Amino acid sequence: MINKLIDKIKKTDAPIVVGLDPMLDYVPSCITKKAFSEYGETLEGAAEAIWQYNKAIIDATYDIIPAVKPQIAMYEQFGVEGMKVFKKTVDYCHEKDLVVIGDVKRGDIGSTSKAYAVGHLGKVTVGNNKISPFNEDFATVNPYLGSDGITPFLDICKEEKKGIFILVKTSNPSSGEFQDRLIDDKPLYEHVGEKVAQWGSQCMGDEYSYVGAVVGATYPEMGAALRKVMPKSMILVPGYGAQGGKAKDLKCFFNEDGLGAIINSSRGIICAYKKEQYIEKGITEENFADASRMAVKDMIEDINGAIK
Amino acid sequence: MINKLIDKIKKTDAPIVVGLDPMLDYVPSCITKKAFSEYGETLEGAAEAIWQYNKAIIDATYDIIPAVKPQIAMYEQFGVEGMKVFKKTVDYCHEKDLVVIGDVKRGDIGSTSKAYAVGHLGKVTVGNNKISPFNEDFATVNPYLGSDGITPFLDICKEEKKGIFILVKTSNPSSGEFQDRLIDDKPLYEHVGEKVAQWGSQCMGDEYSYVGAVVGATYPEMGAALRKVMPKSMILVPGYGAQGGKAKDLKCFFNEDGLGAIINSSRGIICAYKKEQYIEKGITEENFADASRMAVKDMIEDINGAIK
Repeated sequence: MINKLIDKIKKTDAPIVVGLDPMLDYVPSCITKKAFSEYGETLEGAAEAIWQYNKAIIDATYDIIPAVKPQIAMYEQFGVEGMKVFKKTVDYCHEKDLVVIGDVKRGDIGSTSKAYAVGHLGKVTVGNNKISPFNEDFATVNPYLGSDGITPFLDICKEEKKGIFILVKTSNPSSGEFQDRLIDDKPLYEHVGEKVAQWGSQCMGDEYSYVGAVVGATYPEMGAALRKVMPKSMILVPGYGAQGGKAKDLKCFFNEDGLGAIINSSRGIICAYKKEQYIEKGITEENFADASRMAVKDMIEDINGAIK
Repeated sequence: MINKLIDKIKKTDAPIVVGLDPMLDYVPSCITKKAFSEYGETLEGAAEAIWQYNKAIIDATYDIIPAVKPQIAMYEQFGVEGMKVFKKTVDYCHEKDLVVIGDVKRGDIGSTSKAYAVGHLGKVTVGNNKISPFNEDFATVNPYLGSDGITPFLDICKEEKKGIFILVKTSNPSSGEFQDRLIDDKPLYEHVGEKVAQWGSQCMGDEYSYVGAVVGATYPEMGAALRKVMPKSMILVPGYGAQGGKAKDLKCFFNEDGLGAIINSSRGIICAYKKEQYIEKGITEENFADASRMAVKDMIEDINGAIK
């Protein structure tokens, strides 16, 4: 799957991923109204609204992007109905041949970690059947529990030729509270980065490893250091746009081959219809998804302009 | 909810929690056979089997325990159908007046962390309605992302009078890879423990804080140190029994008031029917839940014997 991701990035010339992180107040009111009139102001109604919202954005962008990253928390907040839409979104993205990065940030130990790996990337055994429960292509994973938490994911990645992105340095302001603390003169995130490189060397694709890392766009200097620590790992970079990360700061996340990083934007794309610059171009609530396509194109130009 | 938890521990004289972590191969074949004959060897069939298994164990133990801890990974591995049973289990435990600790180990930032907090402990707003999606009483949370990940949970805890247990020192062999590393001459887990105490001071119940910690039974010396660092935090202690933690090592997790810790056992209780000691007492696959009740009683005796 890492080979497919690289291949699709090359073909679209777009090292980006669209974060499908739907909050209910992002959804245009024409969609929520219709969903509520059909299902009521219920979890079913909310789920239907975010499904229609997602579908329109996917339809408007799938041919010019390599991948999407649904943030599962945004679905989980609507309970079981939200989880249904998470699954429906993953399946629909596969129909459109998109690579799906499940932003699930799971992390546990032993058989529990295996259960997460199976649920999101693998197949669960029921009697004589093997069934894919959520079936993402990649999942994000939290490293706090150490190798016991990661190894079960590696096993499933090898079996299924899928991948993970391990949290190394997150994009938020307080990420330094623990991640930046010095251990033997090196920050914790660098120790985690070294483990990522080690874990990654066990499962290599053609050019990059199945094991990538998450490093926030808001910390470019740390990104530059981590790029060297994990030369064969794809870096998934959140924090561009709404969180303050700028295109000019992104070059250091890439290798000299022009690859090695994939930049996420969520609100910047899915809420583009609320931005003045697109409203001026004739965007309304009704054609909100066209704004997402425009925003994707602008993002690709912005990033390629800065890194090439 | 922390007051209710303490109250129930006092009433049952049982500082324990039963981990409802059903693997399909834990479920007696009489149950899986029936479920598969009704729903096929499908995710629905698997979900029905673990629901019947859970229900029997809850029915057999609810009056002698204060709390349960369903591990969501074990449900998530069965996809949406598994999540339905997670919710059904939480609801059923509430009917039985049990405190429910959702072992979800979630952790993200800002609005994403809020979405998890809302989904598991709070209420989500849909139009004019406020709906509880999963409705646990406590959730476990991962600290790697720092305060940005924790604060949204604290906000919801204050609103709903619910609580969290933050991973501090986990029970697994490799937990030391990052958690034990020295920062300014103190291990990372102790720094996390200090933050737990700080976060916890913002939301106090009568005796203990809404903010507890997870510290593995397999590391009693660290437990003793952390007990002092976080005097007002309940410690949720996994690792007793199957993972190797012994009752004699548990005293250090408790305060002098005899409170302050709650010991989890999962396999030791829910798979008790497979143990020689209960088979000898007439347990078969058919009356497996009776073994769980016996194992709960034995566990309470074992622990109270060691800590009193």
